[in-house]
Amino acid sequence: MTIVNGEEVVNNKQVILREYVSGYPKESDMYVTTGTVKLKVPEGSNAVLVKNLYLSCDPYMRNRMKPATESYIGSYTQGSPIDGHGVGKVLDSAHPKFKQGDLVWGVTGWEEYSLITQTDYLFKIEHTDVPLSYYTGILGMPGMTAYGGFYEVCSPKKGEYVFISAASGAVGQLVGQFAKLLGCFVVGSAGSKEKVDLLKNKFGFDEAFNYKEEPDLDAALKRYFPEGIDIYFENVGGKTLDAVLLNMRAHGRISVCGMISQYNLDELEGVKNLVLIIAKRIRMQGFIAFDYYHLYPKFLDTVLSGIREGKIVYVEDIAEGLENGPAALVGLFSGRNVGKQVVMVARE
Amino acid sequence: MTIVNGEEVVNNKQVILREYVSGYPKESDMYVTTGTVKLKVPEGSNAVLVKNLYLSCDPYMRNRMKPATESYIGSYTQGSPIDGHGVGKVLDSAHPKFKQGDLVWGVTGWEEYSLITQTDYLFKIEHTDVPLSYYTGILGMPGMTAYGGFYEVCSPKKGEYVFISAASGAVGQLVGQFAKLLGCFVVGSAGSKEKVDLLKNKFGFDEAFNYKEEPDLDAALKRYFPEGIDIYFENVGGKTLDAVLLNMRAHGRISVCGMISQYNLDELEGVKNLVLIIAKRIRMQGFIAFDYYHLYPKFLDTVLSGIREGKIVYVEDIAEGLENGPAALVGLFSGRNVGKQVVMVARE
Repeated sequence: MTIVNGEEVVNNKQVILREYVSGYPKESDMYVTTGTVKLKVPEGSNAVLVKNLYLSCDPYMRNRMKPATESYIGSYTQGSPIDGHGVGKVLDSAHPKFKQGDLVWGVTGWEEYSLITQTDYLFKIEHTDVPLSYYTGILGMPGMTAYGGFYEVCSPKKGEYVFISAASGAVGQLVGQFAKLLGCFVVGSAGSKEKVDLLKNKFGFDEAFNYKEEPDLDAALKRYFPEGIDIYFENVGGKTLDAVLLNMRAHGRISVCGMISQYNLDELEGVKNLVLIIAKRIRMQGFIAFDYYHLYPKFLDTVLSGIREGKIVYVEDIAEGLENGPAALVGLFSGRNVGKQVVMVARE
Repeated sequence: MTIVNGEEVVNNKQVILREYVSGYPKESDMYVTTGTVKLKVPEGSNAVLVKNLYLSCDPYMRNRMKPATESYIGSYTQGSPIDGHGVGKVLDSAHPKFKQGDLVWGVTGWEEYSLITQTDYLFKIEHTDVPLSYYTGILGMPGMTAYGGFYEVCSPKKGEYVFISAASGAVGQLVGQFAKLLGCFVVGSAGSKEKVDLLKNKFGFDEAFNYKEEPDLDAALKRYFPEGIDIYFENVGGKTLDAVLLNMRAHGRISVCGMISQYNLDELEGVKNLVLIIAKRIRMQGFIAFDYYHLYPKFLDTVLSGIREGKIVYVEDIAEGLENGPAALVGLFSGRNVGKQVVMVARE
């Protein structure tokens, strides 16, 4: 601890966005620096000061690295720390709902210590018999994304044919397991043999394939879904969506969670087969997890029970140390991670 | 009446599809010929023989002129008469629901007399205080398209901002009036000054514009919808949809009725801004009128009352004579018609 301008401060390592990114993000688009932080919340505020433990790497963060963002929470600021979902320990709090020592998850900075002033979506962690990092994924925002996106948006029914792209990611792996638990036929696509093996052998998907080895996605989908697809959980967009549209069944539903294939393009790809949604009466719906946060208690019960009973499994890819954060985040866009990508800042 | 092979037959003028069409359809893609027809239904059948009075020109018919159709009712047969919706008078019937002299609407051939064997969607016309031709449009399939597509698909609420493309067509003009009756702010686009005038002065749209005079559709939409669009009733597709996506509000709905801009293209245009449906949580839904036919009695009550009370108006463009059918149908795709395009085969 040092004293700056008469106040006690500690060093605070931070991941800074150097400048807005076009094309695929590179590690050098960010840098790690060390600032200082006061470990007290401002008087008269409602803020919470946390020590960050785990940070979440999520595809939507790519859009926040652009000046004119398509995201719902605005662009990052050049020269400032990025933020995202994470798990932290409360060091000081002026908020009645949180006290020192509480574990929380919500939106926090990519730094060792963060002053959280936006506490609307900050959740207190009550169950610690599962790894804390799970609250960046299966028990946090990506978990709610899977839950809301599948149960609320897809209107799934037992026996339906479900396709999930980017299926081994934080959201996809959970959607697939939800669909299996409901009695659907589930196929996932991913970008490596290792991921495909996970989908089939760990997450219990009926089938899975490596899209990089399928020059003709339409043909691949016809092989796995000779009767067509009822539900497509969309994480990818672009050519994948075009191929899926050719294979959707009448009254099919497309839950649009993400379109990661588009996030690094300066010129978006056009989706050509959209006209098919008329004759096939397809419902295509974009959504974000926030809209379903009122369901969090029910979701948490369901998924925690599933984890404890071994009915739901979860795979994470944990990078150790904030200084490895930029590489971990960038790796998401080349598909380097296997399972949910997390950055461990501190264990406790 | 003449005798052929010992049977009484009459001449039957027919519109024949010469061969499958690529690009914009031309009059010469069809020809008019005269065959013969027996004015009796086959014994042991369930069929109805009608004299066709009015035939409907509808955009979906373009897709049926392709060999591999994207439509829900299959391609036309080269060298055979085309079919579509129409109004007819029953000359003979083996079906218990229909008797000689009844007026009916449903799918019939582009010819003077048709033997209708598919009677599932054949409706008896009970109300004749309105022009019979209305049952090809506002009181028939296009009317049900507007009704189902607006009330059932768009989930409209009073005060919402509604945009309708191809707004002066059979469906668009009715959707706009439904939206106005509900208390929405309604803007329509069309392809000529005459149509724009109709939208504003006849159908009571709040605003209307000629898309051909708007080099920047995005800018035009921003001018008419400074606060964005809640509901888009999609009849056009392609670039219009891309511009609309830029201007949709959060939780907006896009009811996809048609994409006429794409029907004459050999290579479909890509829709680039689809990624926006995520952050904006847009619901986009394709539909066809058939799915809402169970609502026909309620629809008919509503719209007939509206017409009788002068609260709903309707504009048709009637071509006289079956021999003018090909030109009328082709004209639909260059926007030559003003209002619903109908072909009158016979007045009674």
